Amino acid sequence: MRKVALASAGMSRFGDRGALTPKDLFTEAWAEARKRAPQWSGAVDEAWIGTVGFGGHQPGNSAAWFLQGTPAQGAPAHRVENACASSAFALRNAALAIASGEVDVAVVGGVEVMNSFSRAHRAAWLGVSGDTEVERTAGLTFPGVYAMMARAHMEEFGTTREHLAHVAVKAHRNGARNPHAQFRKEITLEKALAAPEIAAPLGLFDCCSTTDGAAVLLLTSAEKAPEYCDNPVWLVGSGATSDDLALHDRRYLNRIPATTQAAQRAFAGTALGAHDIDFAEVHDCFTIAEIMATEDLGFVSRGEGGLAAAQGVTDHGGAVVVNPSGGLKAKGHPLGASGAGQVVEVWEQFNGAAGARQVADATRALTHSVGGSGATCAVHVWERET
Amino acid sequence: MRKVALASAGMSRFGDRGALTPKDLFTEAWAEARKRAPQWSGAVDEAWIGTVGFGGHQPGNSAAWFLQGTPAQGAPAHRVENACASSAFALRNAALAIASGEVDVAVVGGVEVMNSFSRAHRAAWLGVSGDTEVERTAGLTFPGVYAMMARAHMEEFGTTREHLAHVAVKAHRNGARNPHAQFRKEITLEKALAAPEIAAPLGLFDCCSTTDGAAVLLLTSAEKAPEYCDNPVWLVGSGATSDDLALHDRRYLNRIPATTQAAQRAFAGTALGAHDIDFAEVHDCFTIAEIMATEDLGFVSRGEGGLAAAQGVTDHGGAVVVNPSGGLKAKGHPLGASGAGQVVEVWEQFNGAAGARQVADATRALTHSVGGSGATCAVHVWERET
Repeated sequence: MRKVALASAGMSRFGDRGALTPKDLFTEAWAEARKRAPQWSGAVDEAWIGTVGFGGHQPGNSAAWFLQGTPAQGAPAHRVENACASSAFALRNAALAIASGEVDVAVVGGVEVMNSFSRAHRAAWLGVSGDTEVERTAGLTFPGVYAMMARAHMEEFGTTREHLAHVAVKAHRNGARNPHAQFRKEITLEKALAAPEIAAPLGLFDCCSTTDGAAVLLLTSAEKAPEYCDNPVWLVGSGATSDDLALHDRRYLNRIPATTQAAQRAFAGTALGAHDIDFAEVHDCFTIAEIMATEDLGFVSRGEGGLAAAQGVTDHGGAVVVNPSGGLKAKGHPLGASGAGQVVEVWEQFNGAAGARQVADATRALTHSVGGSGATCAVHVWERET
Repeated sequence: MRKVALASAGMSRFGDRGALTPKDLFTEAWAEARKRAPQWSGAVDEAWIGTVGFGGHQPGNSAAWFLQGTPAQGAPAHRVENACASSAFALRNAALAIASGEVDVAVVGGVEVMNSFSRAHRAAWLGVSGDTEVERTAGLTFPGVYAMMARAHMEEFGTTREHLAHVAVKAHRNGARNPHAQFRKEITLEKALAAPEIAAPLGLFDCCSTTDGAAVLLLTSAEKAPEYCDNPVWLVGSGATSDDLALHDRRYLNRIPATTQAAQRAFAGTALGAHDIDFAEVHDCFTIAEIMATEDLGFVSRGEGGLAAAQGVTDHGGAVVVNPSGGLKAKGHPLGASGAGQVVEVWEQFNGAAGARQVADATRALTHSVGGSGATCAVHVWERET
């Protein structure tokens, strides 16, 4: 694949942003990406925007709306919607387009507004990304789906509620050091374990917060990269996959095969494997999702994700730092923005801009985004020059 | 750009399909595409599905849902939503991916179910693809938007209601010869002119019917094409653009600049121009839209689209046959399916499968798809080997 450079990246603060519209948040993220690439005029060859469209302000044809009034207006603009993996798939489209030689400079965006929706409306809409033929009709929501996965993981592998709580504690510790994060307070293991139950065995701190936010990435061809930045981050692998929507159609309840397949495809064109990765932003919509991801991606052995979290294997100083940004769990999960938001963390880490959560000596990273409970998945592998 | 082959194409019948779900219609289109490429196993490297999601059955993450149960399940699947141009943008993504060398075999789909929605629901949802900040809030619907365009065209260029009616008569004549079309009855000029007013000066026969339908395209690299078909149609140009959503933000009321720019980009990499095109499927959501398209695409001079339609310039035997399929007007307009549906007509024409509506000796074609009232546009140029 023709090399693709990540020349800049920016994001809005994730969280309850009051009356701000999706476009306000996109503009905030866009401004940060512009500031980090002063040479960039704001013009692009093409744009892909991932959004599920909860915000409601411009649910259809919104890609054109987001570019309206920017120097990028007039460029072909696509809205991509793959549930919570929307902007990770937007990124894949941009990378393929640059690889084709037809596009030299592309923007990938991700946006969602969710807090200004009523609770009932939000719950109804969230469901649309899950299986509608059975799960949604039966009243099953995402906390319920992941609770079943957690139970199956506990039963087969002996994973405990303490293991889950360790994931939450780490997420909040990292999030406390991330100015973009919704939750910037550390929590104790005791607090996590004592929290109200949401869907047993998942408690309040096992669940991410669906929220408001936007992220913007600037991607270029290798040839054009020097015009936009001094030190590009390189996208070296992209893999994606689709699978059954409903859990009952899949062979496993306690793993996400789409993750494993997407990762294999992402690594296929590289000389790298899971053990070469220094840090990863994985799709931790629930603590059990991070534990499954560390196994499905090959960072730890099958069934050992819970223990690894408890032992610090996935924390700073461990074998692979998972979710140094605080993850969806502490940074917040504005569905369409989450995939691109993960890549903002890669940019910040590789540009020494991650402050107190900086991963020491990192040169290789991975981002992992899941749509629904694993019906779609995209994995990207990143490298910086040393 | 690496050459891209259209190896097969199929569609469902467009029209009121009762209780059929989006997946039922997709399956119907898929089956026709499979039948037309018996060598194809149904497996693909990647898939892009254009749908606005009216059907409601699986509004989020639906690309994975459409592939579920087909041999393509497991392939990366993207939902692309750019209003009425959704599957034309899905096509562009597939073409860029094949051009990159990362993908050899891709499916492009388009799907919409609209008739089983209540009228109120349909009107509310249709609006979401128009400008929401002013137009939709003010109660302006698409017939109103295009009526304003028609008025401005009449005022500046002397276009008449008879000119509009000629477009409708031609559409119904072609549609009557298309087994996939919703409306298979010819109409007279008198009938068109006597029809009830929808939004003056547009009458009933000036408006397409938003409806149910699906289309599926099989695209491959040039290298792989011989494995899938004997005589591929070649995609030789792709251009797309974005623009302001609301009419009042644009310089012209009586043209769609996004069309002109997309066409320029589509022709840019080819040695071809508008006058090399033998037939075109253009976005005639209203008769005035076809008239503007013939001008914006360069088939006729500015302001002469109405007269050209009346004089048969855009009919069989004329300089360029516009909408031999019957167009959105007579074939029906299932939003997300329309762009891909246009390409099915190209496949049928170039494979001598267009029956009584066959365009004689055609070797070059163009497809043109508009999102909203021109906020997004994609144009593709096609050639067959002679």
